[in-house]
Amino acid sequence: MNRFKITELGKDVFWLRDTERDHLVKVLRLTPGDLVVGYDNTGMEYTGVILKIEDKSVTCRVLSTDHPDVEAHTSVYIVAGLSKGEKMEWVIQKGTELGMEGLIPLRAKRSVMHLEGSKAQERVIRWQKIASEASKQSHRVREPQISRVCDWQDLVVQLPEDTQWLIPYEEEKTQGLASILDILDSERPIAILIGPEGGFDQTEVSLAQEKLGAQSVSLGPRILRTETAALATLTMVLAHFGDLG
Amino acid sequence: MNRFKITELGKDVFWLRDTERDHLVKVLRLTPGDLVVGYDNTGMEYTGVILKIEDKSVTCRVLSTDHPDVEAHTSVYIVAGLSKGEKMEWVIQKGTELGMEGLIPLRAKRSVMHLEGSKAQERVIRWQKIASEASKQSHRVREPQISRVCDWQDLVVQLPEDTQWLIPYEEEKTQGLASILDILDSERPIAILIGPEGGFDQTEVSLAQEKLGAQSVSLGPRILRTETAALATLTMVLAHFGDLG
Repeated sequence: MNRFKITELGKDVFWLRDTERDHLVKVLRLTPGDLVVGYDNTGMEYTGVILKIEDKSVTCRVLSTDHPDVEAHTSVYIVAGLSKGEKMEWVIQKGTELGMEGLIPLRAKRSVMHLEGSKAQERVIRWQKIASEASKQSHRVREPQISRVCDWQDLVVQLPEDTQWLIPYEEEKTQGLASILDILDSERPIAILIGPEGGFDQTEVSLAQEKLGAQSVSLGPRILRTETAALATLTMVLAHFGDLG
Repeated sequence: MNRFKITELGKDVFWLRDTERDHLVKVLRLTPGDLVVGYDNTGMEYTGVILKIEDKSVTCRVLSTDHPDVEAHTSVYIVAGLSKGEKMEWVIQKGTELGMEGLIPLRAKRSVMHLEGSKAQERVIRWQKIASEASKQSHRVREPQISRVCDWQDLVVQLPEDTQWLIPYEEEKTQGLASILDILDSERPIAILIGPEGGFDQTEVSLAQEKLGAQSVSLGPRILRTETAALATLTMVLAHFGDLG
C-alpha cells in the first residue's frame, strides 16, 4: 500500500496536501475508495481510505490506527562533513533505511563543497526529500530530520547535552569501535562524526575530543571512503543495540 | 604512495604492464626514481623505485617487502542477485573497502537486468576493475575476485563445500542475523545471499535452504534496499569477527 506523510490529522480523518497530494493524484493516480497508509512522524501509522480529492488536498477516513515497532530504539545521528552531492545523498538514503534519527551537515575544513545562504537551504530541502522517500520505502513512521548546514561552533547546540560522540579516525590505531560499543548508553543519543573526502584534519579531531568529549575510534586497517565509514559505523552501532535483527 | 597490481614478480624487481603500466605513465605521469607500492594478490606488499619505463612495461626495483595485516581474517563472500548497474557497482566498491573476499553475480528470478554471453563477460571485467580500484584506495593487498555470472544450479560449485550460507529475507520474522552470528565458524567461508530489487522469491529461498543449508535471517523491521542489505550484513559479519576495528 502506498505511504504518505499526513499534513493534518483530525478525528477519524486525515488530509494530504502539497507534494503528498500531488504525488497521490498525478503520479500514483489513486482515486476515492483506494486505501493508503499515512504517518505523522509521531510513530503512529494510519490506514485510511480516500474519501475526496480536491485541488489542494486529499481527504482520507481513518480505518485503523497502529503503532508499529519499526523505529530504532537507540537514537543515532550522523554528523557529516560536507562532501560531494552523491556521497551525501547516499548516506542520507541508506542511513534512513538503516534507522538513523537524523543527519547534520557540517562545514569541515577539507569540505570541497561549499554551501552558504539560500543554496544551503535549498540543498537541505532536497536532502529532506530523499530522507522522506527512503522513509516511505523502508516503512518508517518517523522521518529522520536533516538539519541546517552548520559550523563547528554551533554543532554542540544541535544535539542534546548528554549526546555520546564518536569520531572514526584513520590515525586512531589503538581504540577500535567495537571496544567502545560496550560502554555506550543506549538510552542517550549517539552522534557519529564523519569527515568529508580527505577526512577531518587533526585540529578538528582535537576540537571534537576536547569540546564534545568525542571518542576517536578505528574501523580497522582498511581505508574506508567517507560514505562507507558513515554507514558502517551506523550499522555497527544499531546492530550492537539489537536494532538490525 | 601510488599502488599498483604487479604483473610479474622477479628477484628484487617487479614489472607493471598493460593498464597498470599505462595508468602509471599516462595518468600519474610518474618517472624513473619515483617510489611506488606494488601488490601481487598473495598478501605481500612491495615498496619499489621505478628503474625503467618502456612501451609495454615499467620495471621497478624492490626496496622493501612487507606482509601488512590489512585483510579480513574471515572470508566473507557476497552472492548478489543481478540488479541494476549502479547497485551492483556500489556493492562491489563498498564491499571491497569493507573487506569482502569475493562477489558472485547470480541470475535471480526477479533480476530485471539480464546478462548473457559476451555481455556478461564484459560486465564482469568492468566489475573486477571497480574491485581493483577500490582495493588500491582502501590499501588492500588481495583484490576480491568477481566471479562469472552464474545460475542457481552452478552456484554451489563456486564456493568451498564447508561454506556457511546466510540469506537475509524479509519474510523471516523470528531469526535475527545477530542470533546467527554466534554460531558461525570464523575459520570457514561465509556467503551472504542477497536478492535483486524485489528480493528472492519463495522458491529461491527454499532452494537455498534445502540445497545449500542456508540460514534465513532478519535484518530488523525496516525494509532495506538490496544494496543496503548486502553491505549491512557484510558489515555485521565482519564486525562480529573483529575485522572492522
